[in-house]
Amino acid sequence: MIILGIDPGYAIVGYGVLSYVGNKFTVLDFGAITTDKDTEFPTRLEQIYDGVGYLIEKWKPAAMAVEELFFNTNSTTAIKVAGARGCCLLSAKKHGVDINEYTPLQVKQSVTGYGRAVKSQVMEMTRMLLNLDHIPKPDDAADALAVAICHAHTSGSMVGKLKNLGIK
Amino acid sequence: MIILGIDPGYAIVGYGVLSYVGNKFTVLDFGAITTDKDTEFPTRLEQIYDGVGYLIEKWKPAAMAVEELFFNTNSTTAIKVAGARGCCLLSAKKHGVDINEYTPLQVKQSVTGYGRAVKSQVMEMTRMLLNLDHIPKPDDAADALAVAICHAHTSGSMVGKLKNLGIK
Repeated sequence: MIILGIDPGYAIVGYGVLSYVGNKFTVLDFGAITTDKDTEFPTRLEQIYDGVGYLIEKWKPAAMAVEELFFNTNSTTAIKVAGARGCCLLSAKKHGVDINEYTPLQVKQSVTGYGRAVKSQVMEMTRMLLNLDHIPKPDDAADALAVAICHAHTSGSMVGKLKNLGIK
Repeated sequence: MIILGIDPGYAIVGYGVLSYVGNKFTVLDFGAITTDKDTEFPTRLEQIYDGVGYLIEKWKPAAMAVEELFFNTNSTTAIKVAGARGCCLLSAKKHGVDINEYTPLQVKQSVTGYGRAVKSQVMEMTRMLLNLDHIPKPDDAADALAVAICHAHTSGSMVGKLKNLGIK
């Protein structure tokens, strides 16, 4: 199964593409879609929508995984991030890709086994699980790979449960 | 000039379509795009994106006008409204329509002449300016017409200024 993880933003959208077969991860791609601060917001949304669409067409993922957003403060930034995230979801929807949302707690729990893990622990575990020499850069790409791992574990465990029930 | 006003939301997107020629308003259409609470969020985003696209193709507006968002509290609702708003902007962008954003203060000032006007005053002035017998329903449609009026006044005054400078 190929999974596209997305870490939403409007200046930087982190992405990570994983193959997950038989409990084995292979990193296919990771990086960031970036938009220029001097570009008008609707154009940045279009670049993000098209960028996610490009990744979907290139890698043909079975699923997209994305974190749910939580903000502690009201801010223009939060509203823009939420707008950009909406366009990421729309791009997956328009391309017929299954969309899966996870809370930060779920991602931490799934990657490190501990829901209160700090960011550096999540990144180091992401590196280890993916057999990489270095933590992927930028951080947004590492975050995107983490949520993709979370989806692999979650959907994998469901497959496991079905198998235990004799359903293949 | 035909103007599409949009009041963003994810359950209800208010819209209003105005013609503004020689300081005269004609209401062409108003109403709401609604999405069902039992529908998954990405599908609701798609319905909103497609709904705005349908209005653009039908009325071929020269411009879209939309209010900027402000939230006093962090909430799931705010994040979803911002996501839906992003998809409205994207739809206009993808259809090549000029996008104009106004603050609530600008809309009140433009419609009533008073930046601290209350909602009922904005609605009544919207009704009067548009020569309607009743305030449009739902409220979201009236709000959308108000932001469309704001854009007409704003762009109209700029045309006026250019004319005063001898630029046609």
